[in-house]
Amino acid sequence: MASEQSQNVHVPEAAAPVAAEQQPQASTVSAPGTEELNPDGTPLSDKQRRKRAEKAEKERLKAEKAARLAAEQAARQAQEVDFAEGNYGVLPMNQSHERKNQQLFAIEDIHPDRDSESIMLMARLQTSRAPSAKLVFLTFRQNVHCVQATLAVTPEKVSRQMTKWAASITPESIVQVEGTISKVPKPIESPSVTVKDAEIKISRLFVAVPVTWEGQIPFYVDDATRSDAEIEASQNTPRPLPPIALDTRLDNRVLDLRTPTNQAIFRLNHGVCRLFREFLENNSFIEIHTPKLQGAATESGASVFKVDYFKGKAFLAQSPQLGKQMAIAADFGRVYEIGPVFRAEDSNTNRHMTEFTGLDLEMAFQEHYHEVVELLNQLFMYIFIELPKRYAVEIACIRRQFPVEEFLVPEKPVVIDFKEGVQMLRDAGYEIEDLDDLSTETERALGKLVRDKYKTDFYALDKFPLDIRPFYTMPDPNDPKYSNSYDFFMRGQEILSGAQRVHDAKYLEERLAAANIPVSAMKHYVDAFRLGAPPHAGGGIGLERVVMLYLGLGNIRRASMFPRDPKRLEP
Amino acid sequence: MASEQSQNVHVPEAAAPVAAEQQPQASTVSAPGTEELNPDGTPLSDKQRRKRAEKAEKERLKAEKAARLAAEQAARQAQEVDFAEGNYGVLPMNQSHERKNQQLFAIEDIHPDRDSESIMLMARLQTSRAPSAKLVFLTFRQNVHCVQATLAVTPEKVSRQMTKWAASITPESIVQVEGTISKVPKPIESPSVTVKDAEIKISRLFVAVPVTWEGQIPFYVDDATRSDAEIEASQNTPRPLPPIALDTRLDNRVLDLRTPTNQAIFRLNHGVCRLFREFLENNSFIEIHTPKLQGAATESGASVFKVDYFKGKAFLAQSPQLGKQMAIAADFGRVYEIGPVFRAEDSNTNRHMTEFTGLDLEMAFQEHYHEVVELLNQLFMYIFIELPKRYAVEIACIRRQFPVEEFLVPEKPVVIDFKEGVQMLRDAGYEIEDLDDLSTETERALGKLVRDKYKTDFYALDKFPLDIRPFYTMPDPNDPKYSNSYDFFMRGQEILSGAQRVHDAKYLEERLAAANIPVSAMKHYVDAFRLGAPPHAGGGIGLERVVMLYLGLGNIRRASMFPRDPKRLEP
Repeated sequence: MASEQSQNVHVPEAAAPVAAEQQPQASTVSAPGTEELNPDGTPLSDKQRRKRAEKAEKERLKAEKAARLAAEQAARQAQEVDFAEGNYGVLPMNQSHERKNQQLFAIEDIHPDRDSESIMLMARLQTSRAPSAKLVFLTFRQNVHCVQATLAVTPEKVSRQMTKWAASITPESIVQVEGTISKVPKPIESPSVTVKDAEIKISRLFVAVPVTWEGQIPFYVDDATRSDAEIEASQNTPRPLPPIALDTRLDNRVLDLRTPTNQAIFRLNHGVCRLFREFLENNSFIEIHTPKLQGAATESGASVFKVDYFKGKAFLAQSPQLGKQMAIAADFGRVYEIGPVFRAEDSNTNRHMTEFTGLDLEMAFQEHYHEVVELLNQLFMYIFIELPKRYAVEIACIRRQFPVEEFLVPEKPVVIDFKEGVQMLRDAGYEIEDLDDLSTETERALGKLVRDKYKTDFYALDKFPLDIRPFYTMPDPNDPKYSNSYDFFMRGQEILSGAQRVHDAKYLEERLAAANIPVSAMKHYVDAFRLGAPPHAGGGIGLERVVMLYLGLGNIRRASMFPRDPKRLEP
Repeated sequence: MASEQSQNVHVPEAAAPVAAEQQPQASTVSAPGTEELNPDGTPLSDKQRRKRAEKAEKERLKAEKAARLAAEQAARQAQEVDFAEGNYGVLPMNQSHERKNQQLFAIEDIHPDRDSESIMLMARLQTSRAPSAKLVFLTFRQNVHCVQATLAVTPEKVSRQMTKWAASITPESIVQVEGTISKVPKPIESPSVTVKDAEIKISRLFVAVPVTWEGQIPFYVDDATRSDAEIEASQNTPRPLPPIALDTRLDNRVLDLRTPTNQAIFRLNHGVCRLFREFLENNSFIEIHTPKLQGAATESGASVFKVDYFKGKAFLAQSPQLGKQMAIAADFGRVYEIGPVFRAEDSNTNRHMTEFTGLDLEMAFQEHYHEVVELLNQLFMYIFIELPKRYAVEIACIRRQFPVEEFLVPEKPVVIDFKEGVQMLRDAGYEIEDLDDLSTETERALGKLVRDKYKTDFYALDKFPLDIRPFYTMPDPNDPKYSNSYDFFMRGQEILSGAQRVHDAKYLEERLAAANIPVSAMKHYVDAFRLGAPPHAGGGIGLERVVMLYLGLGNIRRASMFPRDPKRLEP
């Protein structure tokens, strides 16, 4: 009964008390003092009394049932007064009962030119407000599109019961709306509404999927879409906007992801992957899938996750480095991979995660690793030129919540020698040794200096000192203190690290020995080079860093659908 | 010295013995019996004798050194007799010294029309054979392309020293070849050679990257490219071909991957991913990346890998199931993911791996999950129609080593009701209960029956019994013993499993209870549905299974670049 009721549009709760009042006081028990006798005048035996009592109880229950049925019928009759009963309610759970091939409308197609057109659509209920018992204003959302709608009491169509019910629907429920498009006299002001010059006049409204969250939902999608500036500005107004902490958002990520901003961020996230692939596939790269489960903790043992592997141990790959280099040794020439990368680093910063998406590539070159640096520059330029072309709507949407300076792209790629970078920093007053690595601070400072000098938020730093790079990095042929390695930066933060790799097996063994890594721990890797590998170089890009920095999101978790860090493994 | 020698083209090993013969027997020690005296005639003191001996020893060493230098000079002079000395040898390791922008030629562009054209190319030395001291036949390989070449002694260009050296290069070394294209009078018969009507006449030959494998390399790429039939047929000939076991191949996977067959398999592997993405992106799907590190062992605890996660534990995702469903609850509408999937199942079969590539998708539908079944059918039809169009060369190449019946694609997709499948099996004499799952045997048997009846190697089975599907599967609305779930098959083996999912939170809790899974273990997942999720369905495809079955490779490890199973974590 309970489950039927929740699916039944015909039993408004208000009907229940009426039915209770009408319920008669059912009783068939004899009044006291009128003692019953047998037909022969003798008093009834105990057994007879018991039987009679049982019979009476049965009759009582039967009468009660009849009364209940009568009450229910009365309730139904009372409810028939609602002439709109067929125009609203909760639909049964969609279990794929049938296919009606109904035409559903997209909010983005609502236009004043289609005034008076009848439409049906499925959408999230974003907000509702009932200024009177006869009128409800609602907003409906589909991804980044939002439309306003009105439900007003109308003779024979929309009843007061219907408006009351509509005003009580929990936001975020999925509703099926029927109505007509209606041109509005002046543009709708609400910033959340994207359809500015038309609304829906609702004639029928059903909940297709109810929200069953216990109590109030954690936050409203509308509130979660405001910029910091909007929230701050609202604090001294009658309706201050609630700030929503990042942790609250991430704890309720499914709700958070419904904001138009997040809908746009993850379309852009896909866009970066898509452009990465497009460029590489147009340049003869092959996509590979290297194993994440490794037999040995390679590269650097400290930051590798250990896995129980049947009776032994395995390790999660920190990058596809070994696999993609083996693919080069196996003559695939140019390879790329998009896949998860795992780092067991206990870093709780706004730019580190324990799992992120690596955009990796590796290629054999003919003569010089600068062939690869040039290809990487072309790749990024392709991404930066195409993103604003293809994702203008999404970028504008994100900028409303996260305003940031436009990303400066140079006319010609800028590649700066590490030594020059050090000199620029010194000239600006930073103390840095020749062979020091960049700190987060000097990295950002150099980004600003480069931006001022070259008018770009994107550049590469070439020829890093050898000692601060991994063992498989090829030293510079002219100065063994430096190496054929490079980093790429966006807004002063590293997004790609790469190098020419040591492809000569004997030299690789020397480099392993210098790094105190036993060759035995890397047998299969070294073996790949003993079989001859062409000179090659490559790099790994952090997808979420590119998205975060391009959009100025301030925290890498905002660029990851379900981020993972030392303290977060859910949802 | 050793390292210089390996890079020096001017010191042939043959010169060494000559130098040794010419080396004089150096000695400045006085002959016995001619006792030396002081100028005054007195015998030398012990101290004087010692000093004199020391001086003599120094002179001896000095003379020895002079003799050695003379010998080396003589050796160099002897070597100058080789008029071809500048035309061969080992090049120094490429450390990106300089950019010459040399034009390198591709083997596939070699054509008899370009007869006499001078070319330079880099390639693997595949085989070499020297029928005389004056002539060497070599084959060079670039990926799937292979060309024949001859090096013959020629006055002032190619010396006997050069042919001798060329014949001694280890196969699989990367060589830089200079020569001219030469039309051949009749097609080259060797099956390994792909350029049939032209060859290279070599004028200069250098080893760019030597093979430094200790002893003989594990197998020859040429041998590793033969079909079972070829190997068997050769056993009674003078040159029987060696069969190469799969484990030997996988242990030396880098070498194995160089076979034209494997070069083609992994291009096709990429092709399947590419077509999957193309179709889905053209149908408004968004690519997502869901975390592989999970806070709880979901789905089925038994086959999940456990990970040490700082001071706690994490689990590797068995599929992106939860993440992609949460993306649907977050209004992304249509999502896909290509990524690793981990299964801790101790299955040592030819179709199971512990890590494989999942092609996953999930979509909200309007009315009926058959919308998704239809889209899946369109997706597969797109892949099966495009693959032979775009990868004809690769497929032909693979078929030579792995001959198999052409993959039958139906004109219209075939979807069979599970009940009908059971009936077909019974009609063919198999004993199977109504609600039994298919075994490997009945799965294959049904595949054959369907092939006979519908002329297809690809079909879907719809409406599986509910009890053999995961808890999140939506029951059939008309018969609760069945469900809105489906599998897709290729050549009688499952390649996709999918279903309409339970999207109603309350009903999901019921299903969890029925499956004895505490709701608390799946809190974040259930919460996603409490916030309202549209009706949706999806599926997961095993990439390597699709490739294996399409190509008839017989073992799934052949479709994985670096396969992982309970016994293999390397390379």
